[in-house]
Amino acid sequence: MDYEAFFTGALDELKGEGRYRIFAELERRAGAYPRARRHGGTGPDEVTVWCSNDYLGMGQHPKVLGAIHDTLDRCGAGAGGTRNIAGTTHQHVCLERELADLHGKESALLFTSGYVSNWAALGTLGARIPNLVILSDAGNHASMIEGIRHSRAERQVFAHNDWRDLDRRLAALPKDQPKLVAFESVYSMDGDIAPIAEILDVCEAHGAMSYIDEVHAVGLYGPRGGGIAEREGLMDRITVIEGTLGKAFGVLGGYIAASSALCDFVRSFSSGFIFTTALPPALAAGAAASIRHLKDSSEERQGQQDRVATVRARLKAVGIPVMDNDSHIIPVMVGNPVHCKQISDWLLEEYGIYVQPINYPTVPRGTERLRITPSPVHTAEDVDKLVDALSEIWSRCALSRVAVAA
Amino acid sequence: MDYEAFFTGALDELKGEGRYRIFAELERRAGAYPRARRHGGTGPDEVTVWCSNDYLGMGQHPKVLGAIHDTLDRCGAGAGGTRNIAGTTHQHVCLERELADLHGKESALLFTSGYVSNWAALGTLGARIPNLVILSDAGNHASMIEGIRHSRAERQVFAHNDWRDLDRRLAALPKDQPKLVAFESVYSMDGDIAPIAEILDVCEAHGAMSYIDEVHAVGLYGPRGGGIAEREGLMDRITVIEGTLGKAFGVLGGYIAASSALCDFVRSFSSGFIFTTALPPALAAGAAASIRHLKDSSEERQGQQDRVATVRARLKAVGIPVMDNDSHIIPVMVGNPVHCKQISDWLLEEYGIYVQPINYPTVPRGTERLRITPSPVHTAEDVDKLVDALSEIWSRCALSRVAVAA
Ligand SMILES: Cc1ncc(COP(=O)(O)O)c(C=O)c1O
Ligand SMILES: Cc1ncc(COP(=O)(O)O)c(C=O)c1O
Repeated sequence: MDYEAFFTGALDELKGEGRYRIFAELERRAGAYPRARRHGGTGPDEVTVWCSNDYLGMGQHPKVLGAIHDTLDRCGAGAGGTRNIAGTTHQHVCLERELADLHGKESALLFTSGYVSNWAALGTLGARIPNLVILSDAGNHASMIEGIRHSRAERQVFAHNDWRDLDRRLAALPKDQPKLVAFESVYSMDGDIAPIAEILDVCEAHGAMSYIDEVHAVGLYGPRGGGIAEREGLMDRITVIEGTLGKAFGVLGGYIAASSALCDFVRSFSSGFIFTTALPPALAAGAAASIRHLKDSSEERQGQQDRVATVRARLKAVGIPVMDNDSHIIPVMVGNPVHCKQISDWLLEEYGIYVQPINYPTVPRGTERLRITPSPVHTAEDVDKLVDALSEIWSRCALSRVAVAA
Repeated sequence: MDYEAFFTGALDELKGEGRYRIFAELERRAGAYPRARRHGGTGPDEVTVWCSNDYLGMGQHPKVLGAIHDTLDRCGAGAGGTRNIAGTTHQHVCLERELADLHGKESALLFTSGYVSNWAALGTLGARIPNLVILSDAGNHASMIEGIRHSRAERQVFAHNDWRDLDRRLAALPKDQPKLVAFESVYSMDGDIAPIAEILDVCEAHGAMSYIDEVHAVGLYGPRGGGIAEREGLMDRITVIEGTLGKAFGVLGGYIAASSALCDFVRSFSSGFIFTTALPPALAAGAAASIRHLKDSSEERQGQQDRVATVRARLKAVGIPVMDNDSHIIPVMVGNPVHCKQISDWLLEEYGIYVQPINYPTVPRGTERLRITPSPVHTAEDVDKLVDALSEIWSRCALSRVAVAA
């Protein structure tokens, strides 16, 4: 077989469909975020980033940077080993305590990313609990899907956010079969929020464990940044809360928070936890500083929510088709991969506005979009520029607008 | 089902077998490595680490720390997004170039860890190349095994380092079936080295791609630290070279280096690459600084090899059973999980020497061991203390010694 020809052919197909991904090369600027320098390409060197998951700008917060600098000086760069072999440092232990406290759980377990935490935790529970059936929301993230797939446990997919469908499916299973329900709180591409209380009612009625991915909610919701489940007073009813340290907390890493026995079980049996170098202690310290800050301060959360409300209202006022939801994610619907990429290119090259096009397989075909994530550090002027640019582009292409409510 | 009881029961079994893992909690000390502070437990506060994979002490190298500090100040903490959505920074692009150059390949692709690079690259190639059969060395690391398993491609396991077995197996396959051979250069627990040239001869004779994990070799072997394949002048004959930034390079992350088409293929189709937050730009800059330094400097490599030779000779001289190999890894064989843990505890509590016990499933049952990794920053006095401590413990327990060659 001619392997090179095969790879090239597969890539040509992507290009033909208009969904070959070209990465924008940025240089982030601490203290100036959402401003970044762009390398390569035509158009302005300085761009305003409108699609980052550094939702609150914590990636440039002095406390976070201070903790990382300080720990680097004291402890060096890498952890130097897996958690079991020389890689558990004081900073990891402290961060796990901070996370357990954030979610009101007995324990927490740290992974190198949110992706790995989902993949490894679901993979381990699914593979190791005899006869476990996993009920997975149809909208679940790739990392959960892959973890469940990897576990080879029996799997059922329930209709997105449909606790009645979930209820029917659970009721049809043998009473004594072990069960786990996996879902998200804020779905990252549509920004819709799960009916957590109803899902938990159903789980409890049928003796199922619950597993929630709060990756797009931790730091952002709840009085201490514990996520949607904290805001709704539901954390203690959830078996496993999973989150990331790479989005609102501004650093890198992922985790689960749960009972001590469950965390210890995953710690002891999970290949994806055991056989990999631990996070650098400096990142663990930076993440802990970020979490601690957001436990005490709601200023960033409030600022973000205000900015989101403004951007959403302003875009609607000029008829840009925004998908409605109750979260901080603003999907601007385009519905075609080539148009989506074209609009993104114009924004970047003519206006210095960076919003990455989101195409299949990240979202279903026909729902291609621009995903806008306002943060507390976007200024009123940034918002003006964004709305004007989108409005101009919509006019230029005679893209259909949504009727503006009177 | 009583889930908590199930978890607790499984953990009790591990404890009964003497292979429940207890993590030593360390506080690394930049500039003082291999010295670290130990938290919790009895025994000395200050310990000497003899089991780290920060093989050359690059985790405390001023150039590495300088690059991280500097990039933190300029660019902040996290990348803020996936590689596709706002997370590709200039530092990632530069690091990928540095890695491609290190291995003499057209391209390189960065992952959040070596584990993820193996899992994602093998998982993607196996799942996406129709009818691919993967031939996997019996000693391969968990991350490769899981990646192959996840791909659901046809798999054959060939006898460890046995290119004749590999040859027979390849010869028996249809000539036009696509094939990939996955193996390591330095095997991490026995420290033995693959017959790379012979394996490549066999691959080429049968039109198979070759995939080598050089995780325990990059930075350590070859005139520029490109690994065993560089040392043996074989890099250009290998399809994919995989490595880590978390061991000899002292930071965090993993990668593959290969043709542009292959890297672009994995970049475009791999869930584990696409759907996760990118490494912090500061870590990417730190890793690049480490690679650049080790391309030019052989002092660290030479220092390590000298220290390894000394420790090995000294242990043999007092009859401590050391497994022979041609690498930098010194396995001291114990062969029983309870004894292994006991010896490790004594070393830590009585002598302030930290060597983690290595038990099943990291190594096969009956081959439990202490895995000693000398570095250029261990002093002659450190070596004396290690040898004396092990010798005393061997006498205390009347553990069998190996006949000392005259
Ligand atoms: C819902 C969801 N879960 C998990 C992840 C993975 O988290 P991380 O980026 O920390 O790997 C992501 C995005 O990256 C996500 O959107
Ligand atoms: C042979 C081998 N490959 C891959 C890995 C994973 O690399 P990383 O620690 O960067 O995840 C390891 C150890 O951790 C290993 O020993």
